[in-house]
Amino acid sequence: MTSADLPAYCLDLCRRARTAARRLAAAPSAAKDRWLRHAADAVERRTPLLLEANARDVAGADEHGLNAAAVDRLRLTPARLAGMAASLREVAALADPVGEVREVRLRPNGLEVRKVGVPLGVLLFIYESRPNVTADAAALCVKSGNAVLLRGGREARHSNTALVELLREALTACDLPADAVQYVATPDREAVGRLLRLPEYIDLVIPRGGEGLIRRVAEEARMPVLKHYKGNCHVYVEGSADLDMAERILLNGKCQRPGVCNATESLLVDAAVADVFLPRAVAALRAKGVEVRGCAETCRLAPDAVPATEEDFAAEFLDLIVSIKVVADLDEAVEWIARYGSGHTEAIVTRDLAAARRFTTLVDSSAVLVNASTRFNDGGELGLGAEIGISTDKFHARGPCGLLELTSYKYIVYGDGHVRG
Amino acid sequence: MTSADLPAYCLDLCRRARTAARRLAAAPSAAKDRWLRHAADAVERRTPLLLEANARDVAGADEHGLNAAAVDRLRLTPARLAGMAASLREVAALADPVGEVREVRLRPNGLEVRKVGVPLGVLLFIYESRPNVTADAAALCVKSGNAVLLRGGREARHSNTALVELLREALTACDLPADAVQYVATPDREAVGRLLRLPEYIDLVIPRGGEGLIRRVAEEARMPVLKHYKGNCHVYVEGSADLDMAERILLNGKCQRPGVCNATESLLVDAAVADVFLPRAVAALRAKGVEVRGCAETCRLAPDAVPATEEDFAAEFLDLIVSIKVVADLDEAVEWIARYGSGHTEAIVTRDLAAARRFTTLVDSSAVLVNASTRFNDGGELGLGAEIGISTDKFHARGPCGLLELTSYKYIVYGDGHVRG
Repeated sequence: MTSADLPAYCLDLCRRARTAARRLAAAPSAAKDRWLRHAADAVERRTPLLLEANARDVAGADEHGLNAAAVDRLRLTPARLAGMAASLREVAALADPVGEVREVRLRPNGLEVRKVGVPLGVLLFIYESRPNVTADAAALCVKSGNAVLLRGGREARHSNTALVELLREALTACDLPADAVQYVATPDREAVGRLLRLPEYIDLVIPRGGEGLIRRVAEEARMPVLKHYKGNCHVYVEGSADLDMAERILLNGKCQRPGVCNATESLLVDAAVADVFLPRAVAALRAKGVEVRGCAETCRLAPDAVPATEEDFAAEFLDLIVSIKVVADLDEAVEWIARYGSGHTEAIVTRDLAAARRFTTLVDSSAVLVNASTRFNDGGELGLGAEIGISTDKFHARGPCGLLELTSYKYIVYGDGHVRG
Repeated sequence: MTSADLPAYCLDLCRRARTAARRLAAAPSAAKDRWLRHAADAVERRTPLLLEANARDVAGADEHGLNAAAVDRLRLTPARLAGMAASLREVAALADPVGEVREVRLRPNGLEVRKVGVPLGVLLFIYESRPNVTADAAALCVKSGNAVLLRGGREARHSNTALVELLREALTACDLPADAVQYVATPDREAVGRLLRLPEYIDLVIPRGGEGLIRRVAEEARMPVLKHYKGNCHVYVEGSADLDMAERILLNGKCQRPGVCNATESLLVDAAVADVFLPRAVAALRAKGVEVRGCAETCRLAPDAVPATEEDFAAEFLDLIVSIKVVADLDEAVEWIARYGSGHTEAIVTRDLAAARRFTTLVDSSAVLVNASTRFNDGGELGLGAEIGISTDKFHARGPCGLLELTSYKYIVYGDGHVRG
């Protein structure tokens, strides 16, 4: 394809998606779930073919300059494909948000008003690396009644196109429109920019990747973007805290999976317990290989800490590094979080009910936890089912976004010839 | 103020609003409701002063080139001020969406997850003409915990600034931050453009006015916009319809208040009943002074109709004009609405349950009504309370936007030292 063909290519993708979306919006749950199970079976049956496609991507990894960790993310194995099939079946088992009656009101004049879930329409999902994201995203988008345009990384294109072909064949086999799942296959880097300027065809963009990608998409897009900026998540150890619990929650949040958005990045310690808690907390962190960057008081109490900069306090490290600040009281902790936090996830460790209530009221983050690790801000852990991302916006959806968050609603109103007086 | 001062002026407004919003987010419902009742009392007590300010605006109406209808919208009277006070008291009586627990889940591991309403933050409300919108918008924004920047039309500036002063004094009297309500008082037309480029301070823009204003704001804004484009609302008379009911619903939708967004603009008639229904429907419309623009079949059956153009079928007339199309069946009606409709409000008149269910499933509009006038797509009529507008978007909020739609949510999670394994 020459770049002169790109506008027509993008428009064709969009038109097919819009047509498919209209058919899919009225598809029964049973058909969508049949598709998910059918696709899961196909992933298992065609494991050799998918591994072969993936091998071509892995062979080309050098050419894309991938490091060892990136190659590992790119690689499919029989176990990973089995996990992909299991994920597809899990989405089939979730409740369908489309057609779901969310509210019913009988008005005094006898009108019956129902608020009913509907799909958003056409979604554009932009992502990097791991091919299993292809199947997960398609599953969530189609189950919520939306057509999706998938744009994965170039380094995974053989794996992704093989997967998408399989998903489309399964759609056809289940009497659903194949164009409900399309892959933006052109290598032309202009394709995304062009799609982002077609708000009449694309209802929502979901970029998944680094902050740079998300900012660029948000800047260019003429339609809404589900934004996930960063997670600078705090744990605040309040003066009454059970310090053993505080240490467990801190270590779990920081060390259990340091590269994810709900990992703990910053520790706030109440001055009342700093002299007792900080030396042991810093020792425990250091024993786990965590680099500690602290305020002056932290460095005085725990000489293993190095001085933190302003940037450290605002950073999402995604690594075995933590920033620590001693605060005078709960109000200073709240102020600090308002200033340096990213509105993602904050936790308090406390035994004081009033402190817990005040912290959860005043802290404005997508999840505010009391006596629990920041790692619990996750769709599965909060009971929303599989998630397509975690929104750091307050508009439309906040926090983990699952099937419900990929839908809108309409009002369906029944009368008996009602007119307004 | 010179235009060199404009950036500083806008930034100062925004910073004050952000500070006020943080205080307001934690304000108890009782304080907000006290403010609303206090403000209602003040509107009554200061009626002479408000009328005097309004008289200055009315005196300057010529200079702004207002026609008689616009001057009428601008004019305050003792009765209209009493209505304004009553509206403020009505908002006080509505449930507070902030702090409201919308879902509770107890997870298998004992974590208690609550989804709780929170304000969006800082809103920018841009509107024209009627001064009572100033009080209504401030009431809804502040009750939902948001600080608001109000930008009204220049022709109403004396009325608006007098009202805002009163609302701010009432905030102070009720121990709430006065800056929760600020008026963008500069005559500089650049002010709005500058505010629209400050997404770090303004969380949502709500433009209320013509389609041109809304498109301009949506184009320039770097933050979400609650969009209300147009309402090209259809009534479809299905083959089994009670034709007396169909006529009542048509006349009510078209004639009861033709200048509003949920007025009926287009009639679709099933071919099976066109020869019986159209002559009487067109006669009834003509008797009410409605101009009828129809398809060829309509013109054949009702010679009083004039031929409709493509533009007529897509138009929001906001006037005593209707377009009419004869369709072969329900599926053609649905296709027609998908092509020409604006996703605002559609109604079917039918006695057939299957037709009602199919129409409400397939038509993708913010409200789909069965045997009721399109005029019922309204916050008050649907039981949502007072509305700040009707969204034609599917993202965040759709249809009438009341207090709930001016909020977001957060997850508050209680554990007992929970960590992830």
